[in-house]
Amino acid sequence: MKHITLKDLAKQLGLSTATVSKALKNYPDVSDETKKSVQDLARELNYEPNSFALGLRSKESKIIGVIIPTMIHYFFSSVLDAIFKEAEQRNYMVIVMQSNEEYCNEKKQVDLLLNKGVDGILISLSNKTNDFKHLQKIIDYDIPLVLFDKIAKLVNCSKVFIDDKKAAYEAVSYLISKGYKRIAHFRGDLNPQNSIDRFLGYKKALEDHGITFDPSLVYLCDNNSDFSDGYSSAKQILLDHGDNVDAIFTVNDLMAIGAINYFNEKGIKIPEQIALFGFSNWFMASVITPSLSSIDQNAYQMGKKSIEILFEEILSKKSNKPFTHKKIVIDTELVIRNSC
Amino acid sequence: MKHITLKDLAKQLGLSTATVSKALKNYPDVSDETKKSVQDLARELNYEPNSFALGLRSKESKIIGVIIPTMIHYFFSSVLDAIFKEAEQRNYMVIVMQSNEEYCNEKKQVDLLLNKGVDGILISLSNKTNDFKHLQKIIDYDIPLVLFDKIAKLVNCSKVFIDDKKAAYEAVSYLISKGYKRIAHFRGDLNPQNSIDRFLGYKKALEDHGITFDPSLVYLCDNNSDFSDGYSSAKQILLDHGDNVDAIFTVNDLMAIGAINYFNEKGIKIPEQIALFGFSNWFMASVITPSLSSIDQNAYQMGKKSIEILFEEILSKKSNKPFTHKKIVIDTELVIRNSC
Repeated sequence: MKHITLKDLAKQLGLSTATVSKALKNYPDVSDETKKSVQDLARELNYEPNSFALGLRSKESKIIGVIIPTMIHYFFSSVLDAIFKEAEQRNYMVIVMQSNEEYCNEKKQVDLLLNKGVDGILISLSNKTNDFKHLQKIIDYDIPLVLFDKIAKLVNCSKVFIDDKKAAYEAVSYLISKGYKRIAHFRGDLNPQNSIDRFLGYKKALEDHGITFDPSLVYLCDNNSDFSDGYSSAKQILLDHGDNVDAIFTVNDLMAIGAINYFNEKGIKIPEQIALFGFSNWFMASVITPSLSSIDQNAYQMGKKSIEILFEEILSKKSNKPFTHKKIVIDTELVIRNSC
Repeated sequence: MKHITLKDLAKQLGLSTATVSKALKNYPDVSDETKKSVQDLARELNYEPNSFALGLRSKESKIIGVIIPTMIHYFFSSVLDAIFKEAEQRNYMVIVMQSNEEYCNEKKQVDLLLNKGVDGILISLSNKTNDFKHLQKIIDYDIPLVLFDKIAKLVNCSKVFIDDKKAAYEAVSYLISKGYKRIAHFRGDLNPQNSIDRFLGYKKALEDHGITFDPSLVYLCDNNSDFSDGYSSAKQILLDHGDNVDAIFTVNDLMAIGAINYFNEKGIKIPEQIALFGFSNWFMASVITPSLSSIDQNAYQMGKKSIEILFEEILSKKSNKPFTHKKIVIDTELVIRNSC
């Protein structure tokens, strides 16, 4: 008797092999009606899905896909550094793609990686991503997925991130403990979770220390060019508030460095006239004048943990063992320098 | 009659299929004796190598491999940014590997990429690479190869690079035109061509302007940690020469920034007491105090050109057209700031 293949089923039913395969695996994007007709025919012809699936499963690509928002970024370079080192130790190769902070790129890149048959995917979401169907697709295809740094809380996969709210809270509390009272915030894009959480941490620190939150001290910097956003917001804050502001907590270091450049140009003394606190602890923060206090995000550790968990899931899948998704919170650290 | 496969030949001869495949393609790393025995048997059994080879050839992976020395580097991030954008436009994916400036890593990575069947390879060589057999292997396998930035002059492939000697010559000539006479050089590793060329450009500029070259003003910084190399060499040069040195030309920006940090700490005024000139024009150079004069290497343009040429060769190969290797020199530019 001829061995029945997926193709035979597909031909008899006038469907694509992909649809037949999905129907057999009970994927959600195939209608119940189609599923029934496929499964009925498979039973009738004694199709053996297990041996097929097994064949597919053993065909490892030994490739991991990584999607990051941008390449020219100290944080992501450090994350990639860790990912490359860990992958290489396991004889895996890494395809890297950058979304350029665009959802449509990210969506397309997920499809490319799925088509290429990668063994697992790591993603740090773009600032524009607020639809997660492409992530659900990875899960539906049974490909291990780990989100890191810029994550989506509701997607059912492993996640590695920092506690942005807590880190921001600690930085602003430190400023308050040093006597600063009129503390402004240069915040990032409205969409990404880490930008929201850093803002909330800032606000909570003020409130917990009895300082009334003043919305006019929050500057939205969303031009995707952090340095010049910081520079122009520094200019604006002096126009708006004069010397009635004594510190700025920025959503990232580059924004703080933009502000420092403006203040240095204008001869405004840091930290005497205005203090600054950044976020991310880029290498640059340690070498500018004055050196910038910041929050170290432990980028290398984040990359290492992310790929370790991904490999755990790949291994579990290979040996048909259950895997429980993990949520790992990477510790952050205040790094105090001369800017406050 | 059964169709004769590579495996059949390999089995009969007690060789690996890889060796048989190479013997049939006349690869140089198989002995003449083995080649003869394989080719004789292939003739005897009517093995059809052409259809086999043809099958292999049409199987594009749509993947490009890139090997860079290090990930955490503004220059390479910018190069990769360009490579990703150009690859994506052509629906290609990019596997990135970092050699960590180690020849043995680079060699292993070339093998991994060849085994994966990538359609082309881009490499910027590690500082330790001075054996080029692994590059010759890529060429022997008929896989398009482009070397960029850190190249090997003698390898027969396309190359994209800057004229390091000319750029260094221009920077040092500029310093001389500004009245600096005792100009030191913090040079990089002895091995890489770009480090050698920058040193030669420095030396020639001095000589052409009637300044005697003083070897005691050249500091070798080869600890692979540019910032601290620059910092400690700055300390050393003051111990060795006191104020009998008025400018330093460094092989890269990070080294200059290390030196600036030391001088700032010691209250030594830049450029009044000592001037600095970097190389590479990292973003950081524009935001430190004082801002650093440097040579812009046009990293994005280098990445773009490199992958464009790679695609030209891939396309020529696909359509069986001859391809002449290219040597592209990317223009550099002096960027004058406050450090001199």
